[in-house]
Amino acid sequence: MDNYIVADIGGTQIRVALFSRGKIDPLKVRKIRTRDKDQTPLERLISLINEVWPEKDDVRAICVAVPGFIDAENGIIIDANNIPGWVNYPIRQLLAEHFSIPILIGNDANLAALGEWRYGAGQGHHHVLYLTISTGIGGGMIINDQLLIGSRGLAAEFGHITVIPEGPSCSCGQRGHLEAVASGTAIARWVQEKMALGFRSSLEGKPGISAKDVAEAARQGDELALRAMNRAGTYIGYAIADFLHLFNPSIVILGGGVSTAGPLLIDPLRTAVMERIMDRAYIKDLTITAARLGDNAGLVGALALAESGVDP
Amino acid sequence: MDNYIVADIGGTQIRVALFSRGKIDPLKVRKIRTRDKDQTPLERLISLINEVWPEKDDVRAICVAVPGFIDAENGIIIDANNIPGWVNYPIRQLLAEHFSIPILIGNDANLAALGEWRYGAGQGHHHVLYLTISTGIGGGMIINDQLLIGSRGLAAEFGHITVIPEGPSCSCGQRGHLEAVASGTAIARWVQEKMALGFRSSLEGKPGISAKDVAEAARQGDELALRAMNRAGTYIGYAIADFLHLFNPSIVILGGGVSTAGPLLIDPLRTAVMERIMDRAYIKDLTITAARLGDNAGLVGALALAESGVDP
Repeated sequence: MDNYIVADIGGTQIRVALFSRGKIDPLKVRKIRTRDKDQTPLERLISLINEVWPEKDDVRAICVAVPGFIDAENGIIIDANNIPGWVNYPIRQLLAEHFSIPILIGNDANLAALGEWRYGAGQGHHHVLYLTISTGIGGGMIINDQLLIGSRGLAAEFGHITVIPEGPSCSCGQRGHLEAVASGTAIARWVQEKMALGFRSSLEGKPGISAKDVAEAARQGDELALRAMNRAGTYIGYAIADFLHLFNPSIVILGGGVSTAGPLLIDPLRTAVMERIMDRAYIKDLTITAARLGDNAGLVGALALAESGVDP
Repeated sequence: MDNYIVADIGGTQIRVALFSRGKIDPLKVRKIRTRDKDQTPLERLISLINEVWPEKDDVRAICVAVPGFIDAENGIIIDANNIPGWVNYPIRQLLAEHFSIPILIGNDANLAALGEWRYGAGQGHHHVLYLTISTGIGGGMIINDQLLIGSRGLAAEFGHITVIPEGPSCSCGQRGHLEAVASGTAIARWVQEKMALGFRSSLEGKPGISAKDVAEAARQGDELALRAMNRAGTYIGYAIADFLHLFNPSIVILGGGVSTAGPLLIDPLRTAVMERIMDRAYIKDLTITAARLGDNAGLVGALALAESGVDP
């Protein structure tokens, strides 16, 4: 039986799963905190891989999904957000010292796109735009059944295009990027800034407001929260209109925690796309839909990459 | 000998050339005005194809470069800018009634990108961003040695992404697109608007100011003209920074009449790219350079497509 071990590494936790080919329900899954005072993230990753390693069967490949900039060809993490010390980090070489099977790496959002295309909402499509809207905004793009990677593995940074020139500061150091305007972090910050200016909201006095709190307040009819969700959806829609002009996908898949707010976000998003599209040909037969794989998108995408046996 | 006949159809003129495989100097070229009171553009195209048809040798394929939206798969022009009546126009089928060889069609800017990649400034690169800056702004993108087309042939509309929300009206009906801010038309319009507001310029009183006039005045030191070129280059640079985040090409090729202004446009463009890039990894090994094929890019790109024998 063809087995694959895949890992999804985040700033908070590492998840490792054992899959058999073509089945998106893992045989085993283990998770662990990324940081620990006695072990490095790499040591924790290796011990988890050993934990899920099957007793009898072979493992065909290991695939690791990592946030941040990846040089997939050379197996190097150029810069992993939130994982201290993983800068120009030769993860493939370091893992190869412990496991003598093919080791692949990929950007987590890119792999989630691959997962949604191969096993989720994008099945049957050849041109898939996947956006994940959570703390930040990321994504991936399938073009002609191939993952868009770019010359150095840095493509598809959908959160980092300018939507408000001279707008709010972005996590990347630039200004006015989609992530700085419409991510979960940005939604919560916008509400807090408005309340500080004296706008009334049911969220007043609540400590550490999150985008989830804002969505919940909006659902209860809170006007400021409704405006915040509407604003985020609108800017995401404006950006999607640009992406449609550039990529002309047949489906747009929305994942990530913030996207689960549903119509609060998606309705203004759809309106904004319609408003900004330059020709109706772009939305003829276009599907805009929710992701299907949820938190497992990264793991399942890593499985898809491992199965394909080709570095993205 | 493998011969190919290619045509580049514009609003003003139709050019048709006979090429032999792999040689970018055509064996024959003919041109003719697109519009005529006694003949349709199709009739004029067909007569030109017959003119260049070789006496002895076979022709392997015909490839036609057309402005506007193309459904290459079905050989249909969805909407050709500037050619009246070419809406949902089944050009392949109409040509097939006269020529019983493979007939391919493509968007002219996309084909110019293909030409620059195969035979021009982009040779040896696998991820090429080509921008043409003239009356409008268009372009094409090579990803992993393949032309980006999208699900319905509508991708790579680089002139139609938003750079100034609520900015000037665009030819497409939207606002604030790169084309509306930095094309030749936009440069000339901006100077005229500033003069109407009382800004002084050596261009005052000159009828029908063009971007070429503005570039010439800038070269002579005219301050308003210098500002106009600087502004256009800056916005193109801002857009390129976004494109780098999305596509991560290894080369950006600048074509079209306005790009021949050289440093007047390219220096502020480079500065703007540097200013807006989110990580230096995007410009490591990145080349920004002038197109090499000039006005022949569309014809040579059509040759490249005909040779590949595959519809883009």
